[in-house]
Amino acid sequence: MIDEDRPTISSRDERATPRDGPDAIIAAIVASARGALSRANVPAATVVAAGCSSPGPLDHKTGIVLETPNLVGFREIHLADRLAERLGTKVFIDRDTCMAAIAEGMVGAARGAKDFVYVTVSTGVGGSIVSGGRMEPYPHIGRSSFAGRDASSCSEIGHFPVALQLDASRPANDDLPMCGCGSYGCVEAFAAGSKMAEMYGAKDAGEVYAASARGEERATAIVTRAERALANLAVGLVNVLNPSVIVVGGSIAEHQPAHVLEPMRRAISERAFKVPALAVRVEPAALGADVGMLGAVLEARERAAGKGAWFL
Amino acid sequence: MIDEDRPTISSRDERATPRDGPDAIIAAIVASARGALSRANVPAATVVAAGCSSPGPLDHKTGIVLETPNLVGFREIHLADRLAERLGTKVFIDRDTCMAAIAEGMVGAARGAKDFVYVTVSTGVGGSIVSGGRMEPYPHIGRSSFAGRDASSCSEIGHFPVALQLDASRPANDDLPMCGCGSYGCVEAFAAGSKMAEMYGAKDAGEVYAASARGEERATAIVTRAERALANLAVGLVNVLNPSVIVVGGSIAEHQPAHVLEPMRRAISERAFKVPALAVRVEPAALGADVGMLGAVLEARERAAGKGAWFL
Repeated sequence: MIDEDRPTISSRDERATPRDGPDAIIAAIVASARGALSRANVPAATVVAAGCSSPGPLDHKTGIVLETPNLVGFREIHLADRLAERLGTKVFIDRDTCMAAIAEGMVGAARGAKDFVYVTVSTGVGGSIVSGGRMEPYPHIGRSSFAGRDASSCSEIGHFPVALQLDASRPANDDLPMCGCGSYGCVEAFAAGSKMAEMYGAKDAGEVYAASARGEERATAIVTRAERALANLAVGLVNVLNPSVIVVGGSIAEHQPAHVLEPMRRAISERAFKVPALAVRVEPAALGADVGMLGAVLEARERAAGKGAWFL
Repeated sequence: MIDEDRPTISSRDERATPRDGPDAIIAAIVASARGALSRANVPAATVVAAGCSSPGPLDHKTGIVLETPNLVGFREIHLADRLAERLGTKVFIDRDTCMAAIAEGMVGAARGAKDFVYVTVSTGVGGSIVSGGRMEPYPHIGRSSFAGRDASSCSEIGHFPVALQLDASRPANDDLPMCGCGSYGCVEAFAAGSKMAEMYGAKDAGEVYAASARGEERATAIVTRAERALANLAVGLVNVLNPSVIVVGGSIAEHQPAHVLEPMRRAISERAFKVPALAVRVEPAALGADVGMLGAVLEARERAAGKGAWFL
């Protein structure tokens, strides 16, 4: 891959995600796409393909979002078809984390790596796994059969449980933070920005980190537990998957590297098996907040051209 | 694969693993191989190839065991070469868990599955990942460069950390069981037979399960925590890897299915994402205690014939 492969972003239109159901979300996506085209003076009819990054699980082949804990009412939504119909172009959807991994792998921090894991620490915690230069079987080894369909996109890295209640006389979920997915003890339940803010009663995780920096004890406890959860995830990924790079993106990773990348690196160095620990680099994502857009464009371009074996 | 592919075991020679270093262990393996040949009346000169199953991490291509926490002094040992020299035949080594997965995948509980995880719950907790019908890149995505060698065999499923100290004012490893690997909070540190016995002060895990069945509180606590650790592992494997089968072998899984397979199944059903949870079966290993031997024979046969793309 060469630098010219990195897409140029010529216009953008950002909107808050509606909280009143899938129709409103789809309408907002369509309005946003039209807004971006209009600002760039690009006639809709000249658009060859569009990429849409979405939370999962979803089936990127059929374009259906199956279930997603963080979007209200998004279940069994034919997202690609509904967008294509209203935008009048081919639409390729994929998980946000897969598109981000594609971008980081093709033009970002994992360029040249064949075996890497992309982790995002942001509102949620997610990621995807690239093996031998492919998300294979996409996104990893899964081939789920859900309602007769091949729903293969289910690498939910943020939902590895990394904590348990040690006191056997107490219920299994006692004291463990509940996760949006309905389970408890997930990495995401400790280290997602939305969860940290909720636990502290703040508007966002930035406030929690700021309070911790001032020495506020309750904030520091939340930050410490998030670090421990990310440390467990990092050690587990290295011991089980042996990647050559772990790319860590997302807004919290970007703004709080000392509380995200550093604890991950330290844990790998102190606690993982030596062979895979020496082989792995933990790198900040190179593409910042645009990673999802870049990945969507790269994936749509490849898939529209009938290529994309790298990630299909 | 057809049933005739299942090797017949015509003689066996079992010995305890010496605890006084690699030379003694290698001598015992050689003596055991000669013993088995002699009982079967097979002249050593007619042997085409031998397979040797070993704990890892190891490099199956060079035949070197890199480090292993459970064998005294086994570090950087050229096991395949040293055995080949003394046995006068080709020797193919591999991780015990990989050979077990090969056997279960070719002639056992995962036959026909392309994407499965093999987990063993025994003296230790381990496993391996098969993706798209291959351990690829063997055993999973890893390509470690260790002292210039391609040491790719590092899927240490038992060493995913599944617990953390929730009280941020206490040290990160406080109250967490130490693992043989030097880390803490690993699945193995909770659910390995050797660790359970050690925590209880018993000679083996069977005593702990028996005491728990009698209602002994301390034993029940150990069993409950082991179940919680295995539940976390199961949910994490399903959410992150989305396998079609999880084959669970090892002596503890075999003797205590209600404390191993059942909590894994229950946790998947109650806590994992629905799409991958509906797609996965948790199956007891089909090949029992012979799984390692069968896998070693199958792998040696394929590799000696220059085949074995399935797992090489």
